Amino acid sequence: AAGTARGVALAAAAATAVALAVAAWRRARPVREVLFFPSRPCCIEALLAEAAEPGAPARPCPCPLPSGDTALSRLVRRLLSARRSLDLCLFSFSCPQLARAVQLLHRRGVRVRLVTDAQYMGLHGSQIGRLRHAGIQVRHDQHSGYMHHKFAIVDRRMLITGSLNWTTQAIQSNRENVLVVEDAEYVKAFQDEFERIWEEYNPANYRFF
Amino acid sequence: AAGTARGVALAAAAATAVALAVAAWRRARPVREVLFFPSRPCCIEALLAEAAEPGAPARPCPCPLPSGDTALSRLVRRLLSARRSLDLCLFSFSCPQLARAVQLLHRRGVRVRLVTDAQYMGLHGSQIGRLRHAGIQVRHDQHSGYMHHKFAIVDRRMLITGSLNWTTQAIQSNRENVLVVEDAEYVKAFQDEFERIWEEYNPANYRFF
Repeated sequence: AAGTARGVALAAAAATAVALAVAAWRRARPVREVLFFPSRPCCIEALLAEAAEPGAPARPCPCPLPSGDTALSRLVRRLLSARRSLDLCLFSFSCPQLARAVQLLHRRGVRVRLVTDAQYMGLHGSQIGRLRHAGIQVRHDQHSGYMHHKFAIVDRRMLITGSLNWTTQAIQSNRENVLVVEDAEYVKAFQDEFERIWEEYNPANYRFF
Repeated sequence: AAGTARGVALAAAAATAVALAVAAWRRARPVREVLFFPSRPCCIEALLAEAAEPGAPARPCPCPLPSGDTALSRLVRRLLSARRSLDLCLFSFSCPQLARAVQLLHRRGVRVRLVTDAQYMGLHGSQIGRLRHAGIQVRHDQHSGYMHHKFAIVDRRMLITGSLNWTTQAIQSNRENVLVVEDAEYVKAFQDEFERIWEEYNPANYRFF
């Protein structure tokens, strides 16, 4: 009996060690993900609730949408993983769900900066005004050319970039791609581009003709 | 004198060996490049001429543009490196310079396939008609949503993707990004997406309402 008990304990310890090793390997392995859209419609209320109040008991959402694993839910998860900073460089931002995720991060103390296009920020449904009202720093171009990037950088560590504008139309109806990469070289190139644009679009530099 | 001659020969042999090793390392290292736009205006005639007739004596172009190293010239170089296939998945294609590069590859025997957006292919300045006339296979969506990808795959080996539509406006006036990656995992994901779309947009599947 003692031998059996020792065997069970040993097996349990071995299983724990393997689980810990797998978890460590998962944590250490840099993210490399490709998301294709259109995304199946899905409910992200549970994701937002968990991010707003980690560990709080889940309240079922009354909406009829499934809350499964979709391109949109994966994108939201990546954004909500931000702990310190979120730099957004977005041509068009009108998706209310993504705006709620960004506001939530801002409320949680994440430093959010947003660069956008002057001609698109005022269009119907744009979330830029709402984000500014919430206290998020927004800068925009002053050119006739478009600020056409569509990328985000999470914690100066993870780059999210592709063809996807942050609009409900794009998410639900278009063929689109998004790359999620934790790669120091790519992140640095995009972070440098963000800082260049952030400085160039500083309102102190506006010219009034 | 014999000793000096042997020394010189040895040094020359060593230099050659180092040069060959560096060249081999350069060839073996997968491409990882980030291009940011707008690109300085530049002349790509020399690049196109060299690709059309490798080794032919260079004829200076009479245009006043510099032919330096720009984001556009780098993009063209990557495209012109195609030897077997070029798969294009482009929302909007109106840049004449890029259309000439694609036509040149087609004439050289590279298998070019192009997927585009039905609503944008007929706009003023679109190069799609010209490419079809040249004999290049083109397919387009039949949906109200956009085929909004902007990627190319060279020789099923190199992925070129980003925010850039292939228009002169985007190249010369917009803030845009393009990633060039030789990475089997990313290439496979995009190649699979291309094949899915290529089949879905097969004219045999069109529905007429």
